[in-house]
Amino acid sequence: MKKKSRGRLICAAPEFCADLLYAGGFNAPDPIVWFQTSELQAIVVSILEYERACVQAKKNVRVLPLEEFFRKDDKIKNDDLLIQRISEKYGITEWCVPGDFAVSTADYLRKHGITVLPSGNFFPKREYKTAAEIKKIARSMSATQEAMYLAKEILQQAKVGKNMILHLGKKVVTSEFLRMEIEGFLKARGFTASRTITAHGVQCSQPHNVGSGPIMAGETVVVDIFPRDDETGYWGDMTRTFVKGEPLPVVKRAYEAVLAASRAAEQMIRAGVTGAEVHNKAKEIMAKAGFETGKNKDGIPCGFIHGLGHGVGLEIHEAPRVSPANPGPLKKGQVISNEPGLYHPAWGGIRLEDVLVVTESGATNFYTMPKDMIV
Amino acid sequence: MKKKSRGRLICAAPEFCADLLYAGGFNAPDPIVWFQTSELQAIVVSILEYERACVQAKKNVRVLPLEEFFRKDDKIKNDDLLIQRISEKYGITEWCVPGDFAVSTADYLRKHGITVLPSGNFFPKREYKTAAEIKKIARSMSATQEAMYLAKEILQQAKVGKNMILHLGKKVVTSEFLRMEIEGFLKARGFTASRTITAHGVQCSQPHNVGSGPIMAGETVVVDIFPRDDETGYWGDMTRTFVKGEPLPVVKRAYEAVLAASRAAEQMIRAGVTGAEVHNKAKEIMAKAGFETGKNKDGIPCGFIHGLGHGVGLEIHEAPRVSPANPGPLKKGQVISNEPGLYHPAWGGIRLEDVLVVTESGATNFYTMPKDMIV
Repeated sequence: MKKKSRGRLICAAPEFCADLLYAGGFNAPDPIVWFQTSELQAIVVSILEYERACVQAKKNVRVLPLEEFFRKDDKIKNDDLLIQRISEKYGITEWCVPGDFAVSTADYLRKHGITVLPSGNFFPKREYKTAAEIKKIARSMSATQEAMYLAKEILQQAKVGKNMILHLGKKVVTSEFLRMEIEGFLKARGFTASRTITAHGVQCSQPHNVGSGPIMAGETVVVDIFPRDDETGYWGDMTRTFVKGEPLPVVKRAYEAVLAASRAAEQMIRAGVTGAEVHNKAKEIMAKAGFETGKNKDGIPCGFIHGLGHGVGLEIHEAPRVSPANPGPLKKGQVISNEPGLYHPAWGGIRLEDVLVVTESGATNFYTMPKDMIV
Repeated sequence: MKKKSRGRLICAAPEFCADLLYAGGFNAPDPIVWFQTSELQAIVVSILEYERACVQAKKNVRVLPLEEFFRKDDKIKNDDLLIQRISEKYGITEWCVPGDFAVSTADYLRKHGITVLPSGNFFPKREYKTAAEIKKIARSMSATQEAMYLAKEILQQAKVGKNMILHLGKKVVTSEFLRMEIEGFLKARGFTASRTITAHGVQCSQPHNVGSGPIMAGETVVVDIFPRDDETGYWGDMTRTFVKGEPLPVVKRAYEAVLAASRAAEQMIRAGVTGAEVHNKAKEIMAKAGFETGKNKDGIPCGFIHGLGHGVGLEIHEAPRVSPANPGPLKKGQVISNEPGLYHPAWGGIRLEDVLVVTESGATNFYTMPKDMIV
């Protein structure tokens, strides 16, 4: 009987696979293989990427050229064959893989007698950030906050013109203009943001509506900025809600409720409290202020219609959830968003989002920008 | 015996899954489900995305709210359960899925008696672009070319300072500066570019080296720009090689060889010719000019060390390959790059890349920018 020998394996493009970027430290838009046996940890890359990979890869990760594993008479040189050859060379009969490992490759390996065991949580440690990671995340958060100040400044400097529409010089201030300014600002600093939310008025009642068209005085403007650092792969995430001029009374009340929920949640977050508890506290505060969560007469969800927060790291949405879906306690080193919001088709929406590091005694907020609605 | 009924299924984030973006027309950074049965074609999205999805989705694709498929007492509401419920509701016992479908979900479905059949080429039609697609691709290519003109202009306006280093006003012209200018320019127009190559000197000998540090007169600067349209998801791709001032004689000769290869390949590309033939023609022209492909005495690959081209569409690298790996004929409607290059650790590298639509009688180049090396 063949002796069983187990290894760990990922095959994906690091840019789109946080586990792989975490494991190897090397970023690329094309697929590579990472594997770990009892003997070594390595990434296998094409000769075109070899030198760059040697510079970028983590210290304990060896870089092997792809071409080494193929033979001259191989007709199809693909990832399936590559992994089969790696298995043979290192005597691996069982690979642990992430849950999103390609089924076609898994089927190929299984057909060739190699066991493939998917795991839903491939690197549980990814949830708990090291000091080195927090430093990288802080860089992303800092750029995000700078971009938020830019957005606020544009709204501050804008003048109210005909039909209450905002202008900056001769330009109409639209959602599209605001988005391009924010994203261009970030890109020039090495951060990539897309689908930045700059929604206004009733558009804000849909949390993921990115916004379009001219912005008017008196309307809420939800600005949700989430760029990725081109260098490190870590994300930032921040939301503020602004109004140029005088908002509706209901908007003022809703803003105060969201702000109170944000503060209470931040006060409460620390290692040991559950995500569900913090979410429910925020929900309760907003309900007591007159903003119940439920459906309106047309069946449209209103109120606090999403979770309070999510982990942020090499993915923009990662573990842990901060919501009723997560009954587990928060733990030291988790980096989570705190983003209460209220939404209603009649008057729009409000969201305030910070990101915090969970500590034993509380939480450290990456952002210092005050939460003033009126600019 | 249960009657077999087959459907087609994708579960992924459209932003990172070209097949899903192609099928549904709806772009989102979070996972959604698309499926097709004999009765209907639909995407299943969270209530947060529902209204936006209804606007964006292709006309023949229905939008179903995720929440409809879950029950109040479901403890874990994940994609595995969602797909199981979809299977039950529409009586599907066999799903055809793309090859990169998640193995963990496939295992779950198989355990519950549902067959999962991965396919390596889920939408063969994606390779052949419709007129509507070519219009979208042309938009990306046009922005890419504008950004290339900007890069050229920066090099033209730069002055040669101390140690031959280029300056623009008081700024040193570095690879990083050039990249940020290009990427910021594109972002302000709604296109996302990352890892733009602005390599100089011997850095250019590695085709994927993005470049770093001050650029000097007399050095080659390889500028490879590949942005994605935030709106449509289609990519652009273009490379030029510039020199400010006087290049080395070997660089001049190499440039002429690459230019001749580019022209000959463009002349040759049409429906019916094989990718291998075009690649080999380009390689032969460069070899005849004195630039053989092989390894130097240190074992480093030199010459024409990559394929001549690749398909461009909703992925930056997609079918067909234009290289010896593809013995099949090119076909009408394919959009392919034509990018001969020469690389050598002693003097650097040169690459010229256009993108063309294959037609019955020839090929249409998206770019009109002249290929002058010296700026």
